[in-house]
Amino acid sequence: PNRNVEELAQRRLDNLTKPLGSLGVLEEIASRLAGIQGQALPKLPKEKAIIVLAGDHGVTNEGVSAFPQEVTPQMVLNFLRGGAGINVLARQAGAKVVVADIGVAGEPLEYEGLISCRVKSGTDNFVLGPAMSQEEAVKAIETGIALVQQQIHDSVALVGTGEMGIGNTTPSAAILAVFSGLNPIDVTGRGTGIDDTRMQHKAQVIAKAIEVNRPNPKDGLDVLAKMGGLEIAGLTGVILGCAARGIPVVIDGFISCAAALVANSIAPLSREYMFASHLSGEQGHRLMLELLGLKPMLHLDMRLGEGTGASLAFHLVESAVLIINEMATFDEAGVSQG
Amino acid sequence: PNRNVEELAQRRLDNLTKPLGSLGVLEEIASRLAGIQGQALPKLPKEKAIIVLAGDHGVTNEGVSAFPQEVTPQMVLNFLRGGAGINVLARQAGAKVVVADIGVAGEPLEYEGLISCRVKSGTDNFVLGPAMSQEEAVKAIETGIALVQQQIHDSVALVGTGEMGIGNTTPSAAILAVFSGLNPIDVTGRGTGIDDTRMQHKAQVIAKAIEVNRPNPKDGLDVLAKMGGLEIAGLTGVILGCAARGIPVVIDGFISCAAALVANSIAPLSREYMFASHLSGEQGHRLMLELLGLKPMLHLDMRLGEGTGASLAFHLVESAVLIINEMATFDEAGVSQG
Repeated sequence: PNRNVEELAQRRLDNLTKPLGSLGVLEEIASRLAGIQGQALPKLPKEKAIIVLAGDHGVTNEGVSAFPQEVTPQMVLNFLRGGAGINVLARQAGAKVVVADIGVAGEPLEYEGLISCRVKSGTDNFVLGPAMSQEEAVKAIETGIALVQQQIHDSVALVGTGEMGIGNTTPSAAILAVFSGLNPIDVTGRGTGIDDTRMQHKAQVIAKAIEVNRPNPKDGLDVLAKMGGLEIAGLTGVILGCAARGIPVVIDGFISCAAALVANSIAPLSREYMFASHLSGEQGHRLMLELLGLKPMLHLDMRLGEGTGASLAFHLVESAVLIINEMATFDEAGVSQG
Repeated sequence: PNRNVEELAQRRLDNLTKPLGSLGVLEEIASRLAGIQGQALPKLPKEKAIIVLAGDHGVTNEGVSAFPQEVTPQMVLNFLRGGAGINVLARQAGAKVVVADIGVAGEPLEYEGLISCRVKSGTDNFVLGPAMSQEEAVKAIETGIALVQQQIHDSVALVGTGEMGIGNTTPSAAILAVFSGLNPIDVTGRGTGIDDTRMQHKAQVIAKAIEVNRPNPKDGLDVLAKMGGLEIAGLTGVILGCAARGIPVVIDGFISCAAALVANSIAPLSREYMFASHLSGEQGHRLMLELLGLKPMLHLDMRLGEGTGASLAFHLVESAVLIINEMATFDEAGVSQG
């Protein structure tokens, strides 16, 4: 981002008819977007997209989720038919939903409208060894980058991250445990809704996986390959692709934030392009956001994923653009300054 | 609100293709709206309005604000011309901005588009005695009720509260101090941006006003009349009017919340119609929301007032309506339940 342009934007914000800094986070978003776009008056995005990546997880064999694995392809179909939460919220926000199979388990999915870019039919069970090879992790990242490049080519200028994958809070919590150095029990949550006993089991599974794989917390790619999953790797690519092309990317919840941690580890500058949407109900999410230095805008106790939080935050990103462009200055309005 | 209908709505929400309760506050909003509207599938509001009431405060003589009193009518003009923050955000939300002079100081304002319903030309300095008489407080409440009745007559089905009045965080903090029984220094904030010294002075002014007036914390009308202000009294009426007519009312920030405290004190059932929009940067706001038992949706460190937070929250209220109406159920989508 261009710091000089950010400062120019902040100067304009300071002259608008309101007490200094009184629009809080909206002002931060406006000046960050100005820096990213390289113009003091940032523009509204022409097109917006939520990129929803689907993948499965070998670790579901360990009984870490409340839902069976068959739900992943079922929900993919639901996304394509427009009946899922993300479809409803993206429609409201004027964003399209881009759905890709990057790592669903089983036979290839032949659904109309689905982008097929499967790197592997689900990760391996990370309790027994790496979730995927480094080559597969790189390929999944590259797939995410290619997806976002295509969207940018199609005039998308604001991207939100989304995902679907039964069991994917488990690798996400594992990634957080590795980067934070904390005990798995302190970063493991209820996912789609497991009870205390199953949550303790989930934390033990994560501890075991870390012990077996010994990921290096200084090496984002190593952490990603060993802990998984494919949709997390793909979203890492989406985030890196946005940063490389200078497009803001709105990070959804817990799983998306795991991808953001990996992206930040691989290329710390990518953080400058991330906007945190909401604080999820999933334990550990707050810590992820703190590690990234990002402030969530929405506190709605949501834990659905799919990009639902990102989609809600699109309204707020646009609010910030409208504010800096349309509010009158003290001079224009003839209002006395304090 | 109709509890049976609320339960019907929750049952539908539980059957939508998502983990139980995973849309958090959006689900609460959807079922509350169902109960308020008396139909399990609540409708989007036909029209939306932010009602912005302007008033002045005799206590500004004590030097409690960073801005001079002349800014109140200047900002009223800015609202009418469309250049203020609330104009930008209300346009985005598809809401109209209704601007009324309920208690600005000085000569009557002759601005096109302004609703003139002045009860008194600014409150009296509450350090010396009551901000207004009980009769004036009642008249200001009735004025707010009449304003909202007119809006409902014009098809408005979602109302947000807004205000403008230099110095009005002072009576708001005073109202909070009285209802909470806390020391003024613990509930006083920086308003439009005063420094530590001025903030301590502001707290002393509030302590003095409480000592002089001895408002009865069990009597909302007594607290309102003695502490002020006229726009707070008017917003109390707006909230009571919404509750009486069964319309949801989105509460903005610190000053609007002071009005909500008074409304709650006068008619506790009115709380059922209130939706908290954001957690403001103003110290004390969190406590107000706790006293009301309301959860703010947005955490944006905003402290502008005008209804800006309420306007942002309109999107989220509509998101909740769309979710319960448009998402597919497990059966419809052929998705396995956990």
